Amino acid sequence: MNRDKIITIVGLGVVGGSYALALSKKGYTVFGVNRSQESLDAALSAGAIKEGAHSPEEFFAKSDIIIIALYPNQIVEYLEKYGKYIKNGCLVSDVAGIKSCFVDRIVGGIPSGCEFLFCHPMAGREKRGFKYADDKVLQGANFLIARTDSTSEHAVTLMSDLAKDIGFGNVRITDVATHDKVIAYTSQLPHAIAVSLINSDDEDSDTASFIGDSYRDLTRIANINEDLWSELFLGNRDNLIATITSFEEQLGAIKKALCDEDEVLLKKLFIKSSQRRVLLEKKK
Amino acid sequence: MNRDKIITIVGLGVVGGSYALALSKKGYTVFGVNRSQESLDAALSAGAIKEGAHSPEEFFAKSDIIIIALYPNQIVEYLEKYGKYIKNGCLVSDVAGIKSCFVDRIVGGIPSGCEFLFCHPMAGREKRGFKYADDKVLQGANFLIARTDSTSEHAVTLMSDLAKDIGFGNVRITDVATHDKVIAYTSQLPHAIAVSLINSDDEDSDTASFIGDSYRDLTRIANINEDLWSELFLGNRDNLIATITSFEEQLGAIKKALCDEDEVLLKKLFIKSSQRRVLLEKKK
Repeated sequence: MNRDKIITIVGLGVVGGSYALALSKKGYTVFGVNRSQESLDAALSAGAIKEGAHSPEEFFAKSDIIIIALYPNQIVEYLEKYGKYIKNGCLVSDVAGIKSCFVDRIVGGIPSGCEFLFCHPMAGREKRGFKYADDKVLQGANFLIARTDSTSEHAVTLMSDLAKDIGFGNVRITDVATHDKVIAYTSQLPHAIAVSLINSDDEDSDTASFIGDSYRDLTRIANINEDLWSELFLGNRDNLIATITSFEEQLGAIKKALCDEDEVLLKKLFIKSSQRRVLLEKKK
Repeated sequence: MNRDKIITIVGLGVVGGSYALALSKKGYTVFGVNRSQESLDAALSAGAIKEGAHSPEEFFAKSDIIIIALYPNQIVEYLEKYGKYIKNGCLVSDVAGIKSCFVDRIVGGIPSGCEFLFCHPMAGREKRGFKYADDKVLQGANFLIARTDSTSEHAVTLMSDLAKDIGFGNVRITDVATHDKVIAYTSQLPHAIAVSLINSDDEDSDTASFIGDSYRDLTRIANINEDLWSELFLGNRDNLIATITSFEEQLGAIKKALCDEDEVLLKKLFIKSSQRRVLLEKKK
């Protein structure tokens, strides 16, 4: 990998900050753009960025790669405002958890001579801000590239190489529609479940004394950034509603087996889930 | 804690084996009973037990404490068969995840001069057998004691001290009915959810490439011992059905908010779940 590229990260939150740390460690030249001075100062003193600024004009004019690590809805607006400063030939990318809802506006709005590649690093934390950024969260994580009709091979190769260079494990190339369908199941549904599990607690019980690792694991992501996740949920609502319905059917099967005292069916469901979980670990 | 007690563990699986390891390390004299010679040999060579046997007559006759680490349904039968060998004054206990379904049969069947104390260590693993036993899983874990009308203060104090001595964190004393109600929510419901989540996967998709830590965390316990857990589910079915229903209502609220595109309600649910999760960590 040729590391003499100049890269600008917009948004030094947990994901953008982790990218910046990982890229700088590998020797890339990284500039950071962020609204708050506090995060810029922290990123500078952590060595995550070479220079920081509140707005991107100067950095965009000299960057080979731009990664916009903002909330999905902010990306379109950001490009409308600052797209004109982007250098010809630049590859622009994102880290958003959903894609379909803004793909057309971005593909239509990106300056000619540049390309936008839709990327989704499957790494994050329930906390917010640069102080929780850590390049370790990227190590071995899945990296998704969601193609559109206008995606070039060059862009896919460049980002795949970059992702692997900073530690991502498996790079999976898919299309935007498949990405959003599968992500509704693997990412948004687990968050909906975690939220529902902890919210269904009987508030009178001293729950903390009655829990083991399983409850702790299943509710970790119930501590959720409400602004980001309401956007992800609503921006992918048809897929998410469909996957919630499939899940409800499976849980309904367990409930019915309990009502019917159907031990055979319960065991069948448990054997199926065990086999699938073992298979998942093998594919890791 | 007076460690010159003689303790017999019946069943050297993950939980029984972990107890044996922890107790032996602390200097208690531990005897182990297990059907398979393989586990007895492994426990002996790991220093988890002083002696092992396939049946308990000899050990029961000299033990001060007996911990029956078998499946719930096996405990009653085991005591019917071997109860007569138990030494006068012995404290007998269990590790079962549910209680109400066999409490009466045990309290009625325990030899006079002995006491049975219902205990539930909130520690375990998704794997089976002594080779996965590890006293580390007990460290800091919750330990539940479920009282009945005939539970003595002496027994509660003795087991609380023993649990703390081998590394358990919080010891929570409750009653059998409350235990089963809360455990349906904190233990069985998470397992029902994990099973349903992985079973609702579209089998055609290459899911493993699309997952992050959240999906991995939420499905870990979908690898489930079907014999044990069908017993736990069916033995606590009324409580479990009630808690599944509460959970369904919460998930239904998210689904409705999606259908209605109700961002305000979604955020409200997320803020509530986040506050509860933060509170849970504080109480740890």
